[in-house]
Amino acid sequence: MKKGMIKVSVLYPNGEGKTFDMDYYCNKHVPMVGKLLGDSVKAATVEKGLTGGGPESPALFAAMGNLYFDSMEEFGNSFGPNADKIMADLPNFTNIEPSVQVSEVMI
Amino acid sequence: MKKGMIKVSVLYPNGEGKTFDMDYYCNKHVPMVGKLLGDSVKAATVEKGLTGGGPESPALFAAMGNLYFDSMEEFGNSFGPNADKIMADLPNFTNIEPSVQVSEVMI
Repeated sequence: MKKGMIKVSVLYPNGEGKTFDMDYYCNKHVPMVGKLLGDSVKAATVEKGLTGGGPESPALFAAMGNLYFDSMEEFGNSFGPNADKIMADLPNFTNIEPSVQVSEVMI
Repeated sequence: MKKGMIKVSVLYPNGEGKTFDMDYYCNKHVPMVGKLLGDSVKAATVEKGLTGGGPESPALFAAMGNLYFDSMEEFGNSFGPNADKIMADLPNFTNIEPSVQVSEVMI
Protein backbone atom coordinates (compact mmCIF):
# COMPACT_ATOMS: atom_id res chain seq x y z
CA MET A 1 0.00 0.00 0.00
CA LYS A 2 1.07 3.58 -0.50
CA LYS A 3 2.01 6.00 2.26
CA GLY A 4 -0.94 8.18 3.19
CA MET A 5 -3.63 5.64 2.34
CA ILE A 6 -6.36 4.97 4.90
CA LYS A 7 -6.55 1.48 6.36
CA VAL A 8 -9.76 0.47 8.09
CA SER A 9 -9.23 -2.59 10.28
CA VAL A 10 -12.11 -4.63 11.62
CA LEU A 11 -10.75 -6.65 14.54
CA TYR A 12 -12.65 -9.60 16.04
CA PRO A 13 -11.43 -10.13 19.64
CA ASN A 14 -11.00 -13.73 20.71
CA GLY A 15 -12.69 -15.09 23.83
CA GLU A 16 -14.42 -18.04 25.40
CA GLY A 17 -17.50 -19.06 23.45
CA LYS A 18 -16.63 -16.78 20.56
CA THR A 19 -17.19 -18.20 17.10
CA PHE A 20 -16.04 -17.05 13.68
CA ASP A 21 -16.86 -18.72 10.34
CA MET A 22 -13.78 -17.90 8.26
CA ASP A 23 -15.18 -19.56 5.13
CA TYR A 24 -18.30 -17.41 5.16
CA TYR A 25 -16.24 -14.34 5.94
CA CYS A 26 -13.80 -14.83 3.06
CA ASN A 27 -16.25 -16.15 0.49
CA LYS A 28 -19.43 -14.22 1.27
CA HIS A 29 -18.96 -11.25 3.59
CA VAL A 30 -15.78 -9.69 2.19
CA PRO A 31 -16.95 -10.00 -1.44
CA MET A 32 -20.30 -8.47 -0.43
CA VAL A 33 -18.54 -5.52 1.22
CA GLY A 34 -16.32 -5.12 -1.83
CA LYS A 35 -19.34 -5.02 -4.10
CA LEU A 36 -21.19 -2.50 -1.93
CA LEU A 37 -18.24 -0.14 -1.58
CA GLY A 38 -17.08 -0.49 -5.18
CA ASP A 39 -14.04 1.27 -6.56
CA SER A 40 -13.46 3.19 -3.33
CA VAL A 41 -11.86 0.06 -1.90
CA LYS A 42 -8.31 -0.14 -3.24
CA ALA A 43 -7.48 -3.45 -1.52
CA ALA A 44 -8.87 -5.88 1.04
CA THR A 45 -6.90 -8.27 3.23
CA VAL A 46 -7.97 -10.88 5.76
CA GLU A 47 -5.96 -12.66 8.43
CA LYS A 48 -6.81 -15.53 10.76
CA GLY A 49 -5.40 -15.28 14.29
CA LEU A 50 -3.04 -18.13 15.21
CA THR A 51 -1.26 -17.20 18.45
CA GLY A 52 -0.16 -14.29 20.60
CA GLY A 53 3.49 -13.43 21.12
CA GLY A 54 4.36 -16.93 22.30
CA PRO A 55 3.37 -20.19 20.62
CA GLU A 56 1.19 -21.14 23.62
CA SER A 57 -0.59 -17.81 24.08
CA PRO A 58 -3.96 -17.30 22.40
CA ALA A 59 -4.36 -14.86 19.53
CA LEU A 60 -5.81 -11.50 20.57
CA PHE A 61 -8.07 -11.51 17.53
CA ALA A 62 -9.79 -14.46 15.89
CA ALA A 63 -9.72 -12.55 12.63
CA MET A 64 -8.71 -9.21 11.18
CA GLY A 65 -10.19 -7.72 8.04
CA ASN A 66 -8.64 -4.65 6.45
CA LEU A 67 -9.88 -2.30 3.76
CA TYR A 68 -7.69 0.32 2.10
CA PHE A 69 -8.95 3.66 0.77
CA ASP A 70 -7.24 6.63 -0.86
CA SER A 71 -8.67 9.07 1.69
CA MET A 72 -10.95 9.43 4.71
CA GLU A 73 -13.52 11.00 2.38
CA GLU A 74 -13.54 7.95 0.12
CA PHE A 75 -13.99 5.73 3.17
CA GLY A 76 -16.78 7.83 4.68
CA ASN A 77 -18.66 8.35 1.43
CA SER A 78 -18.64 4.68 0.48
CA PHE A 79 -19.02 3.04 3.89
CA GLY A 80 -21.56 5.37 5.48
CA PRO A 81 -24.52 4.60 3.19
CA ASN A 82 -23.78 0.84 3.39
CA ALA A 83 -22.96 0.49 7.09
CA ASP A 84 -26.34 -0.92 8.09
CA LYS A 85 -26.33 -3.55 5.35
CA ILE A 86 -22.77 -4.62 6.25
CA MET A 87 -23.44 -4.78 10.00
CA ALA A 88 -26.60 -6.82 9.41
CA ASP A 89 -24.48 -9.62 7.89
CA LEU A 90 -22.31 -10.07 11.01
CA PRO A 91 -24.57 -12.60 12.80
CA ASN A 92 -24.21 -14.83 9.73
CA PHE A 93 -20.57 -15.58 10.57
CA THR A 94 -19.74 -14.52 14.14
CA ASN A 95 -21.03 -13.76 17.61
CA ILE A 96 -18.13 -11.36 18.19
CA GLU A 97 -18.63 -7.61 18.37
CA PRO A 98 -15.74 -6.25 16.32
CA SER A 99 -13.53 -3.30 17.14
CA VAL A 100 -12.70 -0.86 14.39
CA GLN A 101 -9.45 1.02 13.94
CA VAL A 102 -8.87 3.64 11.27
CA SER A 103 -5.18 4.13 10.49
CA GLU A 104 -2.90 5.97 8.11
CA VAL A 105 -0.40 3.91 6.13
CA MET A 106 3.14 5.06 6.98
CA ILE A 107 5.17 2.24 5.39
CA MET B 1 0.65 -10.81 0.43
CA LYS B 2 0.04 -14.41 -0.52
CA LYS B 3 -2.43 -16.75 1.15
CA GLY B 4 -0.69 -18.87 3.77
CA MET B 5 1.96 -16.34 4.68
CA ILE B 6 2.56 -15.55 8.35
CA LYS B 7 1.86 -12.00 9.51
CA VAL B 8 3.35 -10.90 12.80
CA SER B 9 1.62 -7.77 14.10
CA VAL B 10 3.09 -5.66 16.86
CA LEU B 11 0.26 -3.55 18.25
CA TYR B 12 0.85 -0.54 20.50
CA PRO B 13 -2.31 0.11 22.59
CA ASN B 14 -3.27 3.74 23.05
CA GLY B 15 -3.84 5.20 26.49
CA GLU B 16 -3.39 8.21 28.71
CA GLY B 17 0.24 9.21 29.02
CA LYS B 18 1.30 6.84 26.26
CA THR B 19 3.90 8.16 23.84
CA PHE B 20 5.08 6.88 20.49
CA ASP B 21 7.78 8.43 18.29
CA MET B 22 6.63 7.52 14.78
CA ASP B 23 9.69 9.08 13.12
CA TYR B 24 12.11 6.98 15.14
CA TYR B 25 9.96 3.90 14.59
CA CYS B 26 9.81 4.26 10.80
CA ASN B 27 13.34 5.52 10.23
CA LYS B 28 15.35 3.66 12.87
CA HIS B 29 13.51 0.78 14.50
CA VAL B 30 11.84 -0.88 11.51
CA PRO B 31 15.01 -0.67 9.35
CA MET B 32 17.02 -2.14 12.26
CA VAL B 33 14.58 -5.05 12.58
CA GLY B 34 14.70 -5.59 8.83
CA LYS B 35 18.48 -5.72 8.89
CA LEU B 36 18.55 -8.14 11.83
CA LEU B 37 15.98 -10.53 10.37
CA GLY B 38 17.29 -10.31 6.82
CA ASP B 39 15.72 -12.14 3.92
CA SER B 40 13.25 -13.96 6.17
CA VAL B 41 11.14 -10.81 6.21
CA LYS B 42 9.17 -10.69 2.96
CA ALA B 43 7.50 -7.34 3.70
CA ALA B 44 7.04 -4.81 6.49
CA THR B 45 4.18 -2.37 6.91
CA VAL B 46 3.50 0.35 9.48
CA GLU B 47 0.29 2.20 10.28
CA LYS B 48 -0.44 5.14 12.55
CA GLY B 49 -3.72 5.01 14.47
CA LEU B 50 -6.12 7.84 13.65
CA THR B 51 -9.51 7.01 15.15
CA GLY B 52 -11.74 4.19 16.28
CA GLY B 53 -14.95 3.27 14.48
CA GLY B 54 -16.31 6.80 14.74
CA PRO B 55 -14.46 10.02 13.92
CA GLU B 56 -14.59 11.11 17.60
CA SER B 57 -13.50 7.82 19.17
CA PRO B 58 -9.80 7.28 19.92
CA ALA B 59 -7.76 4.73 17.99
CA LEU B 60 -7.29 1.43 19.82
CA PHE B 61 -3.65 1.36 18.81
CA ALA B 62 -1.26 4.29 18.47
CA ALA B 63 0.68 2.27 15.93
CA MET B 64 0.73 -1.14 14.27
CA GLY B 65 3.81 -2.72 12.75
CA ASN B 66 3.53 -5.85 10.65
CA LEU B 67 6.13 -8.28 9.37
CA TYR B 68 5.39 -10.97 6.80
CA PHE B 69 7.16 -14.36 6.64
CA ASP B 70 6.79 -17.38 4.40
CA SER B 71 6.30 -19.72 7.38
CA MET B 72 6.25 -19.96 11.19
CA GLU B 73 9.68 -21.56 10.98
CA GLU B 74 11.14 -18.60 9.10
CA PHE B 75 9.64 -16.28 11.71
CA GLY B 76 10.89 -18.28 14.69
CA ASN B 77 14.36 -18.90 13.29
CA SER B 78 14.98 -15.29 12.41
CA PHE B 79 13.20 -13.51 15.27
CA GLY B 80 14.21 -15.76 18.16
CA PRO B 81 17.95 -15.02 18.17
CA ASN B 82 17.28 -11.27 17.74
CA ALA B 83 14.38 -10.81 20.14
CA ASP B 84 16.45 -9.30 22.97
CA LYS B 85 18.12 -6.77 20.70
CA ILE B 86 14.79 -5.74 19.19
CA MET B 87 13.02 -5.43 22.54
CA ALA B 88 15.90 -3.37 23.95
CA ASP B 89 15.19 -0.66 21.35
CA LEU B 90 11.57 -0.11 22.45
CA PRO B 91 12.29 2.50 25.17
CA ASN B 92 13.92 4.62 22.45
CA PHE B 93 10.54 5.35 20.84
CA THR B 94 7.68 4.41 23.18
CA ASN B 95 6.56 3.78 26.75
CA ILE B 96 3.89 1.36 25.51
CA GLU B 97 4.14 -2.37 26.09
CA PRO B 98 3.09 -3.82 22.74
CA SER B 99 0.80 -6.78 22.13
CA VAL B 100 1.81 -9.32 19.53
CA GLN B 101 -0.50 -11.25 17.24
CA VAL B 102 0.65 -13.99 14.88
CA SER B 103 -1.79 -14.54 12.02
CA GLU B 104 -2.17 -16.47 8.81
CA VAL B 105 -2.89 -14.52 5.63
CA MET B 106 -6.22 -15.68 4.16
CA ILE B 107 -6.80 -12.93 1.56
